[in-house]
Amino acid sequence: MRIALDAMGGDYAPAITVEGAIEAINEWDELSIILVGNKEEIKAELNGRNYPPSLISVRHASEVVQMNEPPTVALRQKKDSSIRVALDLVKSGGADAMVSAGNSGAVMATALLVLGKIRGVDRPAIAAVMPTLKGLFVLIDAGANVDCKPLHLLQFAIMGEIYAKNIFNIDVPKIALLGIGKEDVKGNELTKEAFKLLKNSDINFIGNIEGKDIFTGNADVVVCDGFVGNITLKVSEGLAEAITKMLKREISNRTTGRFGYLLLKDAIKSFKKKTDYTEYGGAPLLGISKPCIISHGRSTTKAIKNAIKFAGEFHIKGVIEVISRDIETKMREAEEIALKK
Amino acid sequence: MRIALDAMGGDYAPAITVEGAIEAINEWDELSIILVGNKEEIKAELNGRNYPPSLISVRHASEVVQMNEPPTVALRQKKDSSIRVALDLVKSGGADAMVSAGNSGAVMATALLVLGKIRGVDRPAIAAVMPTLKGLFVLIDAGANVDCKPLHLLQFAIMGEIYAKNIFNIDVPKIALLGIGKEDVKGNELTKEAFKLLKNSDINFIGNIEGKDIFTGNADVVVCDGFVGNITLKVSEGLAEAITKMLKREISNRTTGRFGYLLLKDAIKSFKKKTDYTEYGGAPLLGISKPCIISHGRSTTKAIKNAIKFAGEFHIKGVIEVISRDIETKMREAEEIALKK
Repeated sequence: MRIALDAMGGDYAPAITVEGAIEAINEWDELSIILVGNKEEIKAELNGRNYPPSLISVRHASEVVQMNEPPTVALRQKKDSSIRVALDLVKSGGADAMVSAGNSGAVMATALLVLGKIRGVDRPAIAAVMPTLKGLFVLIDAGANVDCKPLHLLQFAIMGEIYAKNIFNIDVPKIALLGIGKEDVKGNELTKEAFKLLKNSDINFIGNIEGKDIFTGNADVVVCDGFVGNITLKVSEGLAEAITKMLKREISNRTTGRFGYLLLKDAIKSFKKKTDYTEYGGAPLLGISKPCIISHGRSTTKAIKNAIKFAGEFHIKGVIEVISRDIETKMREAEEIALKK
Repeated sequence: MRIALDAMGGDYAPAITVEGAIEAINEWDELSIILVGNKEEIKAELNGRNYPPSLISVRHASEVVQMNEPPTVALRQKKDSSIRVALDLVKSGGADAMVSAGNSGAVMATALLVLGKIRGVDRPAIAAVMPTLKGLFVLIDAGANVDCKPLHLLQFAIMGEIYAKNIFNIDVPKIALLGIGKEDVKGNELTKEAFKLLKNSDINFIGNIEGKDIFTGNADVVVCDGFVGNITLKVSEGLAEAITKMLKREISNRTTGRFGYLLLKDAIKSFKKKTDYTEYGGAPLLGISKPCIISHGRSTTKAIKNAIKFAGEFHIKGVIEVISRDIETKMREAEEIALKK
């Protein structure tokens, strides 16, 4: 498969993006990558590196969307941005999927404009993967839609179910609604209404899940609006970092601790691997008509490499085709059930 | 000071509540405690224990509000609950403050009915304390009000500022709004409007703070609605527990790890102390006319002991008196500034 990589996206681009692309090409077969962005800068990074030249090509884009620019600026004033050119490649069939660690709001807005939504989807959502004690879960929406209606949450649940079935290979994924108490009467106006819709749909809805329980592994898909989802994702990231720092500080305060740390190095490394977002690569924009993967702004080489791998998997497994096939039927069914009640 | 303790509140009551009360009495001077609840059960727990009998008394209450009961049930059907009787004691002047690890929704609703709000406060809020790399911060609202208006968030900010000044002894606390991006244009409808109000008020508003930055210690007070606040609190609690479990699992998988763990025991203990909610005791209902402290449902002896200590500190420092004195003026000022813009 052919991946269009936004080589200018992310805090450490283009050095890290080019390096991630080379590592991906050297690690996986049946892959080719189009690096999109400033060709001089990209070629300077490629210079002297060891990779099969037939599998990495460069597509020039004269502009870069900055991390703090509003999506409207990207859309109106930067029509030759690396984000836009990469998405155009996917649209024209020149690439199967797009990966960007750049401004996620701009990627979302440009993807909506260039690629459009899957028919039947009201609001595309970001599906982020997070670790649990047993494995992984999908958090949807992790930040695309800050103000949602109950029906949007139902769509996120349906898309999350399709994701978990096809990417995690779970036959009947457990879907939960992120809330502040298990009972259906607990929640805000949005989640109380969404609870009814989810309960009356044919997905395997296990009810509300509280924040403290999302890491137990009891739910495969956790549904929420994009504001709450973004805060959940970022609080988790910030706390994991803070805990690692606090532990290191505690350890370095102690002589025996330093010795203990050496003994523990492997354990801490393995733990960090399990909680490290870079292992999971990227988060797809579910509901967009072609594969479009957002990677973390602070992506490392490994994160870019894994996002490229994930984009390939997402394309091959045909997640978008399943959503296209099922979303309208499932939404119609849910609406019919809701009307009957 | 005299603390009315809901002896029946919490998952391990009355064993843990009675034990926490005895430890508090034995540890701090100028304290007396009224244990409120089923007198037979409480006396059975007190039996044979070592404590000054003049400092612990028992007040009978025939009913207990269960953890999953809606607040309306507590209000209408359980008029002799331990929560109600403890709050009646505070109202009548028989106690200076109330502490409960029971059903927090029921405590809030009953406190509103029995003690009422401070004049000028629209919505009392839960002010929870959380750890950072540098110290502590206050999260307000941590769960009392699930659907808020921008003006409520301004009130939470003002009450949080008073809390941080008086309890943390910070002259000019830094107040931030929990959001999804630093820029004022980022957020949902609620936070974008609240941002303007906070910016135009005379509090030391440092802008939006993202989830990943709340643990850095850059903000002393983090303001949000109670739905987002509860999820932030619970996600943090759940993740800290999951990380501890994952680390222990990684360690026990390794022979050298076990040895390392022994060496590290002190470091891990000290780290746990810093991230352990039981150290911070309880969260006050800011905006209620008398001191009313909510403790965690899973409170241990130490958590109850610290909540009692905190209730005393909260009473002595006169936080409620400062809120009563300042809230109306500060809200009027904020409204005048907003009107002028």
